[in-house]
Amino acid sequence: MSDQDKGGIAFIDGEYQPISEARIPLLDWGFLRSDANQDTVSVWKGLFFRLEDHLDRFEQNIAKLRMTCPHNRDQLRSIVSECVCRSGFENAYVQMIMTRGVPPVGIRDPRRCENRFYAFCVPYVWIATPEQQNKGLHLIVSSICRIPSESVDPTLKHYHWLDFQMGLFEAFDRGGDTVVLVNRNGDLTEGPGFNLFLVQNGSLTTPDSGVLNGMTRRTLFELCAELKIQCQAAQIPATQLTNVDEVFLSSTAGGLIPITTINNQVIGDGNPGPVTRQLRNFYWRKRETGWHGTPVGP
Amino acid sequence: MSDQDKGGIAFIDGEYQPISEARIPLLDWGFLRSDANQDTVSVWKGLFFRLEDHLDRFEQNIAKLRMTCPHNRDQLRSIVSECVCRSGFENAYVQMIMTRGVPPVGIRDPRRCENRFYAFCVPYVWIATPEQQNKGLHLIVSSICRIPSESVDPTLKHYHWLDFQMGLFEAFDRGGDTVVLVNRNGDLTEGPGFNLFLVQNGSLTTPDSGVLNGMTRRTLFELCAELKIQCQAAQIPATQLTNVDEVFLSSTAGGLIPITTINNQVIGDGNPGPVTRQLRNFYWRKRETGWHGTPVGP
Repeated sequence: MSDQDKGGIAFIDGEYQPISEARIPLLDWGFLRSDANQDTVSVWKGLFFRLEDHLDRFEQNIAKLRMTCPHNRDQLRSIVSECVCRSGFENAYVQMIMTRGVPPVGIRDPRRCENRFYAFCVPYVWIATPEQQNKGLHLIVSSICRIPSESVDPTLKHYHWLDFQMGLFEAFDRGGDTVVLVNRNGDLTEGPGFNLFLVQNGSLTTPDSGVLNGMTRRTLFELCAELKIQCQAAQIPATQLTNVDEVFLSSTAGGLIPITTINNQVIGDGNPGPVTRQLRNFYWRKRETGWHGTPVGP
Repeated sequence: MSDQDKGGIAFIDGEYQPISEARIPLLDWGFLRSDANQDTVSVWKGLFFRLEDHLDRFEQNIAKLRMTCPHNRDQLRSIVSECVCRSGFENAYVQMIMTRGVPPVGIRDPRRCENRFYAFCVPYVWIATPEQQNKGLHLIVSSICRIPSESVDPTLKHYHWLDFQMGLFEAFDRGGDTVVLVNRNGDLTEGPGFNLFLVQNGSLTTPDSGVLNGMTRRTLFELCAELKIQCQAAQIPATQLTNVDEVFLSSTAGGLIPITTINNQVIGDGNPGPVTRQLRNFYWRKRETGWHGTPVGP
């Protein structure tokens, strides 16, 4: 049986169960208010990537939302590890979730909820198919604005994705594979589950605000420092995409994935460029040597 | 046993079940992407209020989100009615929900999801306690901006509520009971589950954009027309709240509820004003005569 067929394992109400049976209360405000925060760690060849960094961010975001996690750091580590062990996956996508929880009947006060923790493990998720990863994606720049920082803190890993979801429909309509949203000034922000990087004259830029501080984005800064490639966060008008050498996205769901067409315009010769290829190979090679790795298991 | 103790009834996967047991799949994108839309109808003394208007809006919003409801209008009407009948409530809060559904394993394409319908009925929800309804609420004007129209269509009845939830925490910290959010220009928008109305010199204004076209808001326009009270939608700077005779909120969860303090400043003599009282009495009297009413039952 392949990993895809096995489905995965969830941790709900203190019990491990097959993902296909995993359910949450209908009245959980994590659903009815999207009052929730998550963090997703990848596992590759039996190693968690940056597990402590993910746990740091998860705990910081729980505090920002004024929630209380029923599990301490050791317990969280042990729960996600157990999810992966029970699933039997060598390569996995592991999500931890805190929700506001179910309020008492008739109460609309978030302070009165008992916050809930869930986790699940599914086979490693790729934001693009293997064919797309090699050929590169077709990115559409949407007219939809990413939910701004004045409304929801973008450093939370929240589930407010209707802007992304409608942006995806727009991208598909326009012949694209995925989408990036802008802010109201027309600067680039982020896409559904990824940060964006532009390569110009051998140096990298990525949007500096209104985006998640993605773990793979952070990793890119480290890889660039090691390779002596200049990499900076900056305000980037979407119009700058017409004048780039290479573009790629970064995500826990696939690492670095090249983008070779933007708004139906091919970039360069239409193949993933040398900087993208170098960084992508370097990323996977470093991961396979155990860089930032924590073995799954007790 | 009181209605509050009975809990309620949910309709999930074609089955009616006690609300306390009602659960949805963990992997439903209605949760993991907040890719969902709802509509909530109230029942008072055995009568649905504006049921067909709610069903119209629900179906329009499902189309906007490019979802497909597995039930036609007759079936929806029958499901919500059955939820109320089985719950045994005379006064109820009935919610219909469409979600994107669970994607196939490893797929991140919303077109590939089978959309899901849920419904539930709980005892009638009041946005404020009976004491607060008579005394009036203390409203805090937040510095948080409501998620703007450029990001998410505000005429959807979506679950992107983190701005409201954090606004509520801010309001509680500042001694308030509830909160209203602004837009980035400092104009009033809406609060968690309600529209806002200001009364000045006997006429009403309510924010004209960036808000849900609430069913009770719509009802207010009709009541005002009948009573020959001027009522208009307009852009309203939050600063205008320092210069009002009366303020109230409108919501399916309680009808009209007076606001008598704003940012720790008492309005007038601190009691609900005459226009608010007149409209509130008129609203409930009309409902009790069966205005816009549809009997619960087959």
